[in-house]
Amino acid sequence: MSAESVVATTLFGDRLADAVERKRSQLLVGLDPRPDLLPVELVGDVHYDRAAAADGCARFCRGIIDAVAPYVVGVKPQVAFFEALGADGFRAFEEACAYARAAGLVVLADAKRGDIGSTSRAYAAAYLEPRDEEPPVADAMTVNLYLGRDSLDPYLAACRRHGGGLFGVLNTSNEGADVQGLALSDGRPLWQHLARMIHELGEDIVGSRGLSSVGAVVGATHPRAVGEARRLMPQAVLLLPGVGAQGGSPADLARAFTSGPASALVSASRSVLYAFRSTGEDWRTAAALEAARLQREVWAVAGW
Amino acid sequence: MSAESVVATTLFGDRLADAVERKRSQLLVGLDPRPDLLPVELVGDVHYDRAAAADGCARFCRGIIDAVAPYVVGVKPQVAFFEALGADGFRAFEEACAYARAAGLVVLADAKRGDIGSTSRAYAAAYLEPRDEEPPVADAMTVNLYLGRDSLDPYLAACRRHGGGLFGVLNTSNEGADVQGLALSDGRPLWQHLARMIHELGEDIVGSRGLSSVGAVVGATHPRAVGEARRLMPQAVLLLPGVGAQGGSPADLARAFTSGPASALVSASRSVLYAFRSTGEDWRTAAALEAARLQREVWAVAGW
Repeated sequence: MSAESVVATTLFGDRLADAVERKRSQLLVGLDPRPDLLPVELVGDVHYDRAAAADGCARFCRGIIDAVAPYVVGVKPQVAFFEALGADGFRAFEEACAYARAAGLVVLADAKRGDIGSTSRAYAAAYLEPRDEEPPVADAMTVNLYLGRDSLDPYLAACRRHGGGLFGVLNTSNEGADVQGLALSDGRPLWQHLARMIHELGEDIVGSRGLSSVGAVVGATHPRAVGEARRLMPQAVLLLPGVGAQGGSPADLARAFTSGPASALVSASRSVLYAFRSTGEDWRTAAALEAARLQREVWAVAGW
Repeated sequence: MSAESVVATTLFGDRLADAVERKRSQLLVGLDPRPDLLPVELVGDVHYDRAAAADGCARFCRGIIDAVAPYVVGVKPQVAFFEALGADGFRAFEEACAYARAAGLVVLADAKRGDIGSTSRAYAAAYLEPRDEEPPVADAMTVNLYLGRDSLDPYLAACRRHGGGLFGVLNTSNEGADVQGLALSDGRPLWQHLARMIHELGEDIVGSRGLSSVGAVVGATHPRAVGEARRLMPQAVLLLPGVGAQGGSPADLARAFTSGPASALVSASRSVLYAFRSTGEDWRTAAALEAARLQREVWAVAGW
């Protein structure tokens, strides 16, 4: 593909910065479709047949994307929920990604993949490389860092060549997160060592707006960790899940945004997707209202 | 499903021990189908169309399973290579798993998944739980341990209820594996801390043959690590990839087998799948010969 090598690819950081400023939003809605929580009009036989469940999930994702598109910069499909429905679910994942892309949204695949060598190359190809004349299924993806620096090379190559973004998982909001905080021999917690690794890996893939293609997932329920992450990775986009259903509040997040309006992304999943279950409104209306509310709140906290 | 709760599930360790003794084999063949390496008779348009590529991979996997079934205790499909072909690839993965199960083989899905909360439950459901009246797609799967103890709860529940097995990734053969060996404040490398975690998590899911449902992936290219892993996890099944193409030799592995004939599994992928590329024989014949050779070699090393 000789054409590819001469096309000047816009780096992820610049694409994201443009999108955030255009939409005036740092909000991602997580697509976590769960057959047992879908609106009754989409449910059908989903509890018993995976093909029907996958179809219900695909329709749910389209409806949510339509509803929240004015208020979000992108979507974060959680691959596990699609994968749980097998090949039919994976088809629904691909369709949701294409639908979101057609709506002008950034697609961040929450896959948390991690492997080595040719396997790592296969995962990078699965998410961040063009396929059959089609664009990559996602603009960016999450990865696990345990297998070390060279396990990330194929993703970094895709970031350089195709404008993709990479988000390494640093810390999470679960109670039993006993590994990420382990003290290393120099006294630092493990996740901070990995934060420096992310910073170094991304140092030469920085766009004109100062943001690297290599970012990090930082649990928004740890406000002190957010500030420390910002300090360790000044050019990284921080992905902050855990707002809404997982308990973090947007005010905890202000320090994440000190590297620019697009230097952090806030993601909310259940609190938007399933807002209708507590409000009693139409599911699309409820999702749109909650997304609009979070958009304003995050934009105000970011202070740009 | 009330019937389920009263059915006495055979734990993974016992199922595996039976299978290893019946087959006189501790060998797994890794299913890493790569369209660019397939036999020419299966290739067709695989370089350009993912549906055709997935079909070629599915036929390759069936042929390999038929060829190696007499010599192996199971197969280890590497999910990434299927996932790289999208939903069609995921269908080929499901078909390969079902085909191997029908051939009486243990199916170990090499997925290295890792996430928290409801997402972790979705991954456990995807691989280790029955679906639509069908058995689980896999007998066991690999997971990443970085997200900590409670991230593994859903998999452990599936191991207890459905007889599944879990393999946590400890160390790998890549050059840049700089994270797994980080020294903790007590001087131990990170992976050894995780080895103890695996031991503890699996202590109450041990079958009558003394093997736990929770095992570990230990790079076979580190013979000293293999012995240390055995010492730290006396009841764990050790999955040793890296024999063959990745450079380890079966003689490095003897210490892994000191907890019984089924206390370690050796996996070989490229050296079996693509043996035909160096020998010039029919691809099935070449794979069968290499699998038979490795079966004997590993059985001799295990010394049972």
